[in-house]
Amino acid sequence: MSIETPREVITDPQELLAQMTLEEKLAQIVGFWDKGDGEAVAPLQGEFAEASTFAGATANGLGHVTRVYGTRPVDPIERAQWLWNEQRRVVNETRLGIPMLVHEECLTGLSAWQAATFPTPLAWGASFNAELVEDMGALIGESMRQLGVHQGLAPVLDVIRDPRWGRVEECIAEDPYTVATIATAYVKGLQSQGIHATLKHFVGYSGSQAGRNFAPLHAGPRELADVLLPPFEMAVRDGKARSVMHSYNEIDGVPVAANPELLTGLLRDQWGFDGTVVADYFGVAFLEKLHNVAGNLSQAAKLALEAGVDIELPTGDAYLGPLAAAVRAGDVPIELVDRAVLRALQQKAELGLLGNTFNDEPPSDIDLDSLRHRAVARELAEQSVVLVANNGILPLSPANESDASVGSPRKIALIGPNADRISAMFGCYSFVNHVLSLHEGYEMGIEVPTMREALNQEFADASILYSEGCDIDSDDTSRFAEAVECASDADVAVLVLGDQSALFGRGTVGEGCDRDDLELPGVQRALAERIIATGKPVILVLLTGRPYVVGWALEQAAAVVQGFFPGEEGAAAVAGVLSGRVNPSAKLPVSLPRATGSQPYTYLHPALGGNSDVTSLSSTPAREFGFGLSYTSYEHTVPQVSATTTDQPVTVSVTVRNTGDLSGTEVVQLYARDLVGSVTRPVAQLVGYARVELAPGEQAELTFAVPPTRLSFAGRDLRRIVEPGDFTFWTGTSATPANSVTTVALAGSVHPVRLDDPRITEVTVTR
Amino acid sequence: MSIETPREVITDPQELLAQMTLEEKLAQIVGFWDKGDGEAVAPLQGEFAEASTFAGATANGLGHVTRVYGTRPVDPIERAQWLWNEQRRVVNETRLGIPMLVHEECLTGLSAWQAATFPTPLAWGASFNAELVEDMGALIGESMRQLGVHQGLAPVLDVIRDPRWGRVEECIAEDPYTVATIATAYVKGLQSQGIHATLKHFVGYSGSQAGRNFAPLHAGPRELADVLLPPFEMAVRDGKARSVMHSYNEIDGVPVAANPELLTGLLRDQWGFDGTVVADYFGVAFLEKLHNVAGNLSQAAKLALEAGVDIELPTGDAYLGPLAAAVRAGDVPIELVDRAVLRALQQKAELGLLGNTFNDEPPSDIDLDSLRHRAVARELAEQSVVLVANNGILPLSPANESDASVGSPRKIALIGPNADRISAMFGCYSFVNHVLSLHEGYEMGIEVPTMREALNQEFADASILYSEGCDIDSDDTSRFAEAVECASDADVAVLVLGDQSALFGRGTVGEGCDRDDLELPGVQRALAERIIATGKPVILVLLTGRPYVVGWALEQAAAVVQGFFPGEEGAAAVAGVLSGRVNPSAKLPVSLPRATGSQPYTYLHPALGGNSDVTSLSSTPAREFGFGLSYTSYEHTVPQVSATTTDQPVTVSVTVRNTGDLSGTEVVQLYARDLVGSVTRPVAQLVGYARVELAPGEQAELTFAVPPTRLSFAGRDLRRIVEPGDFTFWTGTSATPANSVTTVALAGSVHPVRLDDPRITEVTVTR
Repeated sequence: MSIETPREVITDPQELLAQMTLEEKLAQIVGFWDKGDGEAVAPLQGEFAEASTFAGATANGLGHVTRVYGTRPVDPIERAQWLWNEQRRVVNETRLGIPMLVHEECLTGLSAWQAATFPTPLAWGASFNAELVEDMGALIGESMRQLGVHQGLAPVLDVIRDPRWGRVEECIAEDPYTVATIATAYVKGLQSQGIHATLKHFVGYSGSQAGRNFAPLHAGPRELADVLLPPFEMAVRDGKARSVMHSYNEIDGVPVAANPELLTGLLRDQWGFDGTVVADYFGVAFLEKLHNVAGNLSQAAKLALEAGVDIELPTGDAYLGPLAAAVRAGDVPIELVDRAVLRALQQKAELGLLGNTFNDEPPSDIDLDSLRHRAVARELAEQSVVLVANNGILPLSPANESDASVGSPRKIALIGPNADRISAMFGCYSFVNHVLSLHEGYEMGIEVPTMREALNQEFADASILYSEGCDIDSDDTSRFAEAVECASDADVAVLVLGDQSALFGRGTVGEGCDRDDLELPGVQRALAERIIATGKPVILVLLTGRPYVVGWALEQAAAVVQGFFPGEEGAAAVAGVLSGRVNPSAKLPVSLPRATGSQPYTYLHPALGGNSDVTSLSSTPAREFGFGLSYTSYEHTVPQVSATTTDQPVTVSVTVRNTGDLSGTEVVQLYARDLVGSVTRPVAQLVGYARVELAPGEQAELTFAVPPTRLSFAGRDLRRIVEPGDFTFWTGTSATPANSVTTVALAGSVHPVRLDDPRITEVTVTR
Repeated sequence: MSIETPREVITDPQELLAQMTLEEKLAQIVGFWDKGDGEAVAPLQGEFAEASTFAGATANGLGHVTRVYGTRPVDPIERAQWLWNEQRRVVNETRLGIPMLVHEECLTGLSAWQAATFPTPLAWGASFNAELVEDMGALIGESMRQLGVHQGLAPVLDVIRDPRWGRVEECIAEDPYTVATIATAYVKGLQSQGIHATLKHFVGYSGSQAGRNFAPLHAGPRELADVLLPPFEMAVRDGKARSVMHSYNEIDGVPVAANPELLTGLLRDQWGFDGTVVADYFGVAFLEKLHNVAGNLSQAAKLALEAGVDIELPTGDAYLGPLAAAVRAGDVPIELVDRAVLRALQQKAELGLLGNTFNDEPPSDIDLDSLRHRAVARELAEQSVVLVANNGILPLSPANESDASVGSPRKIALIGPNADRISAMFGCYSFVNHVLSLHEGYEMGIEVPTMREALNQEFADASILYSEGCDIDSDDTSRFAEAVECASDADVAVLVLGDQSALFGRGTVGEGCDRDDLELPGVQRALAERIIATGKPVILVLLTGRPYVVGWALEQAAAVVQGFFPGEEGAAAVAGVLSGRVNPSAKLPVSLPRATGSQPYTYLHPALGGNSDVTSLSSTPAREFGFGLSYTSYEHTVPQVSATTTDQPVTVSVTVRNTGDLSGTEVVQLYARDLVGSVTRPVAQLVGYARVELAPGEQAELTFAVPPTRLSFAGRDLRRIVEPGDFTFWTGTSATPANSVTTVALAGSVHPVRLDDPRITEVTVTR
């Protein structure tokens, strides 16, 4: 027996549970949030009273410490010192000595001052580069591990269903397979560092009625099974995600936080998930306060616990006093509490927390934004910038004195509210926009060039004239004249428009920043039209968190570049696309909408979900999912399909050739359509994709092995099946069906797909 | 044995069935449509080849004759002669001598030349007058009976879910109870004349994604049970409707025409419906052609027949040759065919068709638009005109020389594209807009004053200046100046804007005329704003088939009057409201939308379906369901509620007093809210209503007996229940919760509601 361990510490979860008082149990299934000055960074946060001091909150132990680094701008090194001390205190001063699990937000990078901030999920989707997202996840996880954080509240696996919703910027794509593969890569990266990922938001949040945050999802079980659930299934089964967060919304009248069929029946009993289910912040109490399915917090606690919500976050509003009262009154059996506590303890065991004395030293010198971070941030940003229109003006070669043609301008007018703004690079869960924006007097903590700085560097020989033009979201047109003058003085105008991401009404996009109008916010379109009217060629750069209605710009601007909050290296990435240093390879992860009134729309629709002769409305978006231009061109052959039977992978081969003059990377997208089904089937569904780099004239053969799962759907009885019959396959660079498709008949009988069957379409590239 | 009956006619359906060949059977479950010049009056009609001549189509007998009167403008008397002859021919010349069932459209009146055309369903909803709708139904049925029509393809029971959908004008309300009661009254009226009503469209059509006609309904089973199905249930159980038409849409992947759970399991096995289920036109073939759930017409026939579609309309595209082939191939058991045929024959037996020799004479002199028709049309129109804003300018007293104040103008400028247009009075299924508009050289057939004519009559002493101003739906602003001049010359401007209802893209509203923008069509808003800018007081009259975004007008116009295609007597009704001859009593049957991008929205939403602190968006409509002003004022007392238990009716009493100087009729609306439920519950739900006429100073006590069914919902297991707990009740004139509500606790246990329990809230009025 060593001197440093004066008492026997129990490290077996079952044994620990057997020793616990009710208060000790409940303490393990709640978090505590030391919010300091109490700025609102969660919905209705102000509604909930502070439980007590941190010391008080840990008297019986504590399940989770909420947002140690991401609540206020604090020096990470100092904060780590505090954290280690608190862990030691809890280990030493509580009866059972169980360390606390520390969770933090980390969607686009660890939410901590001075930590790297990567592009937003829409940008990951646009890159179609799961490997790179995995690298990013690993870097984020590494920083978290260094700082003593155990669980990250990311990624978001909500499939985009309506661009009006403000949280679209936290989502990856409107296609479930893209979401599934990219999110699973994130999970693998993060968890490779010993950090537990949290799948958000299980399930249906993105389909909120009319894009209103928290509004009901109107959907039946087949839409859940075929569209909304598959990303979670892949991240649980293939990604081995260790935690899942319930979503705030209701589905057909039942709030998910109170839905045992989903949180237990599907997730655990069918999928075999054995991690923890955590509440979205205040989600248990919201069963009473917002959903009105509980008359008080005891009832809310009972509903959530029964359904399978193990841990209440961010604090114990319902799972402490109200749940204790319910247990003592006999309304909640202690076995339900024990079920959750055991899962909480098992998670701590997995994380190596049980028995950890924190006698190691906290980090004294770490770089949360190293060159490795910057390199991944840059590469991902470069691969995420989508060229959606180009009349040939792009790329703009760097200017030189002898060539003043439009294509290589000497004078560039840089105009727009996002042209010289750091926060235009980030989403709402970035530390900069989420936390730092609420505090004054702090430095940025990381190096973030704006578009103006990046253009000055990229076009060092040109002169960059600058004019802000207008605000992000106001009626003020008083600076239009100055902007017009700026454009008139230049050879070409680069107009940088878009969003300010923030939370709860403080921005134009982000959590709680929903829109019922998909025009660009404020007077930005009017500004663009004024600049276009000068006759100068206009390159429109959009830095947005959702797709906007920009069909007008596709016609009128010389080029349109869509960026999705590209992160700390994003400005240079966009500048690189403008100059041609970067040949764009990104594809739209979400359709550019036709009109506000066309929503909801998804490319993944049955025949009657799109255009038809029985409605006067067109639903064709301005640009379809998957669309993106390059500075070179590619040719795809008609796919060769070796079809077999419903129970075997379908092999699809296509040769892609770079037919232009520049090297480039093509995102080859394989789509399929099941021509006749026992239920309606989408007219196009992405079943595989691959990035392939090709030199001019080079070609490569891509062979996709499409497993039955990818062609399956929830049949009449909701079992997942592949039906025999004709399927068409085509490759292309958007969901719009190609001219040449290959039709094959799958023979065999109706094939039931099993959970252990492969979900991923493996792609081999032969040159 | 009489000389006139030379052969024995079998009149027993079972016996008939036993005698039939397969071809004779199939002939009984299809229609034949003699379309003449073949103008498209149904979706994709052109896609389907003509089967044969009428004689050929009846060789084996015929189930239905499709639209004898409503396909072309034909003299009803001559057409009846033709019909009687054809019936005699079929009786005499086919082996089994079974007469044909004649069906016709009749939504706003029998679809026949010279027949009365009543206000549209939205107007019925606005009247909240079920009795009057029943009278109208009886008049329509009477005309049908006189002309040898047996079944009417009405009413429409789709609960309004999205104003973008063009068929909103065929619907009654956004509230299920209003739809249920008004539609059931229509059914009773029609069927009182021996005509079979057809409930359309079972079920879910109105929730088509983004309002696109035929697009998928995204909804779970609870939304179906609580919102979309109750009107059908009431019309089947209380209205004893004899026929049901399937809806075109899919629900969560399954087209309704191929859904046995709905068409058989729910409708017949649970509800006990024993009439016929008919296809919406071409709906069986659409299973192949649009939904792609069948590979050919044989498969489509099999799916529909299995599901429970008994009769294919308008013609036998799938149920003749393709179904015969499937039966012969052993793919479809003959028992399935027999099931449908027997129902068809039983319906004919009920209608007195079996054994009918048509030896009576067809009508030689009938009045399809008698004074009785006109009186009901007028009364219903007067009760349907909703006053949605009034700064005091209304009513305009008739002018006289001595008083030229604004309130009693001498010169009225009448402006707008609906100011002098007959078709502005009618919906898309009116004979005028549906049929006559496609043919040249025919007279209107009925007397239909326009707004211009009605104003000239109503304000006989004033001078009415007229200017069209603009088209319904074009960019042409060339006549604005003339309209402005017209307004400038007058004391007051009456601006009549709105829709042209038509089918399949030919109108701004109607079947297949969906909109993705809820601004008034074309340049109508711009015209209004120009007229308002003159400074003259503007009274905006809307004659529309859907609610538009007119929040701007509620602020800027002196008054806004919302009419919903008020029918042949509608212009006089609107004029009467303007003059004060009619004190408006109508209430909005559908919310006036806040914005296009706020859709879908319904007043019937859980807390999070409306405004909340977690979204930046307001969902409050410009005017809520139930809103409507009067020229007098009413005071409601706080309701007295005698609550008992969950299994007993709740009695709610309220005293309403006319506190103004004019007689008027108040539509007293009783709303309830179940404060806590095991699933989310709407913040307001209409549970009863009554019209009460009150002289100035008069008061009346209304006592509502709210049966448990009205407080019930589909619980967690989808059984319909009333849960104990607190409920609030209030009366008001819109769904916006009143300031004073009464909260009562319902005691008892969870009460399962049964099919035979009363559905209607009976109201007694004591003076």
